[in-house]
Amino acid sequence: MKPFLCEDFLLNTPTAKVLYHDVAKKLPIVDYHCHLDPQAIYEDARFENITQLWLGGDHYKWRILRSNGVDEYYITGSAPDRVKFQKFAEALPRCIGNPMYHWCHLELKNYFGYQGVLNGETAEEVWNLCNTQLQQPEFSARNLIARSNVTMIGTTDDPCSDLKWHKLLAESDFETKVYPSFRPDPALNAHKPDFSAYIQKLSQAADMPICSAADVAKALTKRIEYFNECGCRASDHGLDYVMHRIGTMDDIESVFQKAMAGERLSAAETEIYQTYLLLHCGREYARHGWVMQLHFSCFRNPNSRQFAALGADSGYDCIAVTDSSAALHRLMDAWDSTDQLPKTIVYSLNPADDQWLDTLLGAYQGTEVPGKIQHGSAWWFNDNKVGMQNQMTSLAQLGILGNFIGMLTDSRSFLSYARHEYFRRILCNLIGTWVENGEYPADMDTLGELVADICCRNAVRYFNL
Amino acid sequence: MKPFLCEDFLLNTPTAKVLYHDVAKKLPIVDYHCHLDPQAIYEDARFENITQLWLGGDHYKWRILRSNGVDEYYITGSAPDRVKFQKFAEALPRCIGNPMYHWCHLELKNYFGYQGVLNGETAEEVWNLCNTQLQQPEFSARNLIARSNVTMIGTTDDPCSDLKWHKLLAESDFETKVYPSFRPDPALNAHKPDFSAYIQKLSQAADMPICSAADVAKALTKRIEYFNECGCRASDHGLDYVMHRIGTMDDIESVFQKAMAGERLSAAETEIYQTYLLLHCGREYARHGWVMQLHFSCFRNPNSRQFAALGADSGYDCIAVTDSSAALHRLMDAWDSTDQLPKTIVYSLNPADDQWLDTLLGAYQGTEVPGKIQHGSAWWFNDNKVGMQNQMTSLAQLGILGNFIGMLTDSRSFLSYARHEYFRRILCNLIGTWVENGEYPADMDTLGELVADICCRNAVRYFNL
Amino acid sequence: MKPFLCEDFLLNTPTAKVLYHDVAKKLPIVDYHCHLDPQAIYEDARFENITQLWLGGDHYKWRILRSNGVDEYYITGSAPDRVKFQKFAEALPRCIGNPMYHWCHLELKNYFGYQGVLNGETAEEVWNLCNTQLQQPEFSARNLIARSNVTMIGTTDDPCSDLKWHKLLAESDFETKVYPSFRPDPALNAHKPDFSAYIQKLSQAADMPICSAADVAKALTKRIEYFNECGCRASDHGLDYVMHRIGTMDDIESVFQKAMAGERLSAAETEIYQTYLLLHCGREYARHGWVMQLHFSCFRNPNSRQFAALGADSGYDCIAVTDSSAALHRLMDAWDSTDQLPKTIVYSLNPADDQWLDTLLGAYQGTEVPGKIQHGSAWWFNDNKVGMQNQMTSLAQLGILGNFIGMLTDSRSFLSYARHEYFRRILCNLIGTWVENGEYPADMDTLGELVADICCRNAVRYFNL
Repeated sequence: MKPFLCEDFLLNTPTAKVLYHDVAKKLPIVDYHCHLDPQAIYEDARFENITQLWLGGDHYKWRILRSNGVDEYYITGSAPDRVKFQKFAEALPRCIGNPMYHWCHLELKNYFGYQGVLNGETAEEVWNLCNTQLQQPEFSARNLIARSNVTMIGTTDDPCSDLKWHKLLAESDFETKVYPSFRPDPALNAHKPDFSAYIQKLSQAADMPICSAADVAKALTKRIEYFNECGCRASDHGLDYVMHRIGTMDDIESVFQKAMAGERLSAAETEIYQTYLLLHCGREYARHGWVMQLHFSCFRNPNSRQFAALGADSGYDCIAVTDSSAALHRLMDAWDSTDQLPKTIVYSLNPADDQWLDTLLGAYQGTEVPGKIQHGSAWWFNDNKVGMQNQMTSLAQLGILGNFIGMLTDSRSFLSYARHEYFRRILCNLIGTWVENGEYPADMDTLGELVADICCRNAVRYFNL
Repeated sequence: MKPFLCEDFLLNTPTAKVLYHDVAKKLPIVDYHCHLDPQAIYEDARFENITQLWLGGDHYKWRILRSNGVDEYYITGSAPDRVKFQKFAEALPRCIGNPMYHWCHLELKNYFGYQGVLNGETAEEVWNLCNTQLQQPEFSARNLIARSNVTMIGTTDDPCSDLKWHKLLAESDFETKVYPSFRPDPALNAHKPDFSAYIQKLSQAADMPICSAADVAKALTKRIEYFNECGCRASDHGLDYVMHRIGTMDDIESVFQKAMAGERLSAAETEIYQTYLLLHCGREYARHGWVMQLHFSCFRNPNSRQFAALGADSGYDCIAVTDSSAALHRLMDAWDSTDQLPKTIVYSLNPADDQWLDTLLGAYQGTEVPGKIQHGSAWWFNDNKVGMQNQMTSLAQLGILGNFIGMLTDSRSFLSYARHEYFRRILCNLIGTWVENGEYPADMDTLGELVADICCRNAVRYFNL
Repeated sequence: MKPFLCEDFLLNTPTAKVLYHDVAKKLPIVDYHCHLDPQAIYEDARFENITQLWLGGDHYKWRILRSNGVDEYYITGSAPDRVKFQKFAEALPRCIGNPMYHWCHLELKNYFGYQGVLNGETAEEVWNLCNTQLQQPEFSARNLIARSNVTMIGTTDDPCSDLKWHKLLAESDFETKVYPSFRPDPALNAHKPDFSAYIQKLSQAADMPICSAADVAKALTKRIEYFNECGCRASDHGLDYVMHRIGTMDDIESVFQKAMAGERLSAAETEIYQTYLLLHCGREYARHGWVMQLHFSCFRNPNSRQFAALGADSGYDCIAVTDSSAALHRLMDAWDSTDQLPKTIVYSLNPADDQWLDTLLGAYQGTEVPGKIQHGSAWWFNDNKVGMQNQMTSLAQLGILGNFIGMLTDSRSFLSYARHEYFRRILCNLIGTWVENGEYPADMDTLGELVADICCRNAVRYFNL
């Protein structure tokens, strides 16, 4: 029996162990998509206690607490931090098989040197241990990043952002590159109540009046240029589902006017407007050599009572079932047909989509880079052991695993680099198992190249770092 | 090599063996959802021969025979019992990898002490062995239940039932609790030809005239109250798919009148009526602290020739593909938004739905009990080894496995408790594998608690037993 | 560690090894569905070099090259054969976990005796080795087939074909039976631009005027009779999705007239016409005791730029997500209700469909042959290790694996019989694992029968060979 979370955690064969310990473990991290706050990085934020670090904004953990029958008072409410931590420590042992169990213990081990098991009885010990250490300088935001060997961070940013913190970071002596990513969802969501207010904001940011959908496109182009000057090399779109509905320019403009007037749009109207801007943005990304990320099949804010109380991103979003296959093909084909298809990473939150997605990649590849079209790493609910194994196995079987750009954290936490370790162990174990089973030659040089490529070198090439 | 069906069947690690033999094996069974006949239990039914016990009503076995090219004469027809048994014994060895192969041999071993392998050549021996034993008193319905260490049985009952047999059982000295479950499908299926006849029956049972949809709701409320007095603590809805279509009270009443007049309803009309009653029933369940079970994605009676010949539930139903995700969210949200969401177990017959379902749970949990919203055990076609592993792995990764209420039989047979053994072996093996692989501490006390909770103690708490 | 591609490749238990080496390996191949060219077989085609053999028409390999960022010049373009081979050899090592990696090395080992590993550095050696051997007579089309122990080949043929090469083959001394399969897709695709031209061609082939949809049905009946005389015993339909839309005869005829006039059809119009002919053809197949194959959920020609440049079947097709479940039930029920349901093999390109398909089989079985309705072997994108394991595991759990008719190549290549070896190793390993795990008795006679049945004997019975 292997001890809990030992050195060879998740590594079940000699080949896997060699690949992880001799290759993967030592490689830098390219965290090309996360939700870290650039201001917190610039200001080198500190954390008073483990509750603020772990439970302050991590809706994965809130979900665990709710699933354990805990009252909101102890989650997002005003219960004392020590009590909140106790509730979490009591819930954790129930979470056998959940990646949260592994992430938490990896973080405690890697950053705080805690070798034990967190539960209701050890909570006091862990609370004290962590909080003492959090006072040390190596637990500041920048030092956590540096200790994690992160060479690049891609944040997620509003097109209206002035990217002040990114500029300051670029001028600072902080060695990790922190680049913005362009996420124009509010400009595309014409059906949302805050649309017209957002358009005003965009108008100011782009320093131009916006009176039409064509103006929105122009303003986004200007902001893309500005982001590009600030080092941005990736965009991100969060879509409920993928749509492709072509309207005439008149249709599109009339939808825009309706939306600006606060009138309710039909699904078809929204789609016409969104398709127009999505196609426009993609062409701009291609022009700048950017990477386009398309995230879809998320059911947002399903619990209206808690949405009213807590707002978005509070741990209620779910996997959606959407029919995005045909529309995604049509979008890709539209860009490709005029040779304006940017490098693209597609991510579906529904793992039942893995196979059709992996075949879609093969229909739009290009010569810019091996693996121009990527199936993004198992994401959000799926970045657990089976989810990552399945995503990589499917990709290997239907495409080229060796060209995969690998893991990202998608996280709001400065400790979440443990997830890269988790990914790398799973990757090395997968490959090691194949090799030990006679499915690939035991040529450690070639295997080491493949592992290094997937862990970080493919991402370096893909993002032109 | 492990001998066939040996003591350590399905248990592949030392931890798994300890968890099963020292913990799981000895625990009582809470069979909270089945289709046993309460009259047969009360009257302590006996079975003349193994064909009547095994092939009399088990449509899983009929399906096996049909898939082996056997004529209906030997299945539901008038062939002699011995000949029917022969056909089944000849089909069984072809079923490598099918849970039927395991269930049959577990039942032969556990109840009849048969250690051999059933096939065409051993059929005579097994026939004689079983039939001799079936004459013994320990093979009566009640003794089979008692020998299986079952402490609670939840049957499935029509709202019009007077629950006579449940009352008699409650007054009897039979130690196993036998509670009814409330299954009002016929009152909701306004599109079915026997709807108006059923409403007449319900009117009599509820002792009130039913002239409107609102009256149906009132009558169901009365029957829920009656069931509640008789010990009922769970309901069950069998839905082709999950619907959520809100109509005005006028719309709903006009659909009801149309249905009562025998007119054909559109799908939208049916949905309006069903949504109204589903929402109403859910609120009533919440008021009584009942558990609501929602079963969906079954394609019923696809073979019209055999439906005409044999009626419903004769082994032709299939897994349906339905888009139930958004509607289920809207239903849950409707109940939750007025704080009238009952404890709920959701079951989809399509295992491709597992992941979105497991995330949906987390959006509606409450403080009544840890795991208020449950993803039901792998059901019907899915209660095989891979199906149960996948359901529990997905639940563990996306929710809290430790709060899972575990297995049920959903069966019409008094021998089917072998399926609880099957489930428990798979559960212990899954957990044991994680522990041996270093993914959870080898703390046998905590592990024993988790196993005992999932095997029965969570269900005891969940159903207030 | 097992050496790469050793004798026990993919065989992980002693039982698996015995089943493969003592039973499966020696069995003949019944390749009941492929795309080999009967003329090439009759004329005993030869290949100048390994590029022509491997890269001349194999769109699986083209896809690999594109996914590796290779320019079309080196794929379907005019680059020299040696250079194309180099590009492929360089891409292959990136394809860890892809079945292409295994197929290529199995082919090099089994046919050319090459024991090494193909990559950019060994490409020259392999190029020379293969090309020298390709000059030998044992590398002609017929000898490759004979060396592979193939007893039957089912080609794929247009209803208008005169089957000249099949007739010549039947008269020749070539021992492998080569039968045509009837694939009438062009006659059903009324929405495609070349429809009316095809109907002219069909009119000539059937030697009758075609002025109506009813005439199309008549002409197809005539061609089915002709194919039947030429040894055909199977048909094949390639459907984007399964449709079932019943129209009146007037509706059907008006769709036909519209299509012949080159007018654009709505989806519903196309479906009415297709359903009519599909139902008609199925009844004819039943009358002749043929096998009907239904392939669906393929997204064809998604990349319009490359479709314009390279035409169909050039490696751009993808897995589609379709809602084919209800329609397939209605089709099956329509045939079954008049007792005109032929033996049927269903194949979906989307592996998310496996479970509902496996339950559908059980609703329409018959007494003609055990396993009258079959779930076809993991197909196209899915005939990799996990895909085949999953298809067989699902079939075993939801149906009867022992009645499965097993593997086919679906290939255009004379070397692709290595895929039967791949399948057989995976099958033996799956069964061997169950046996070693105590899930089936270690009765080698029964196991040998099961393996032989699935590898070829079930197919012999199913196709009346």
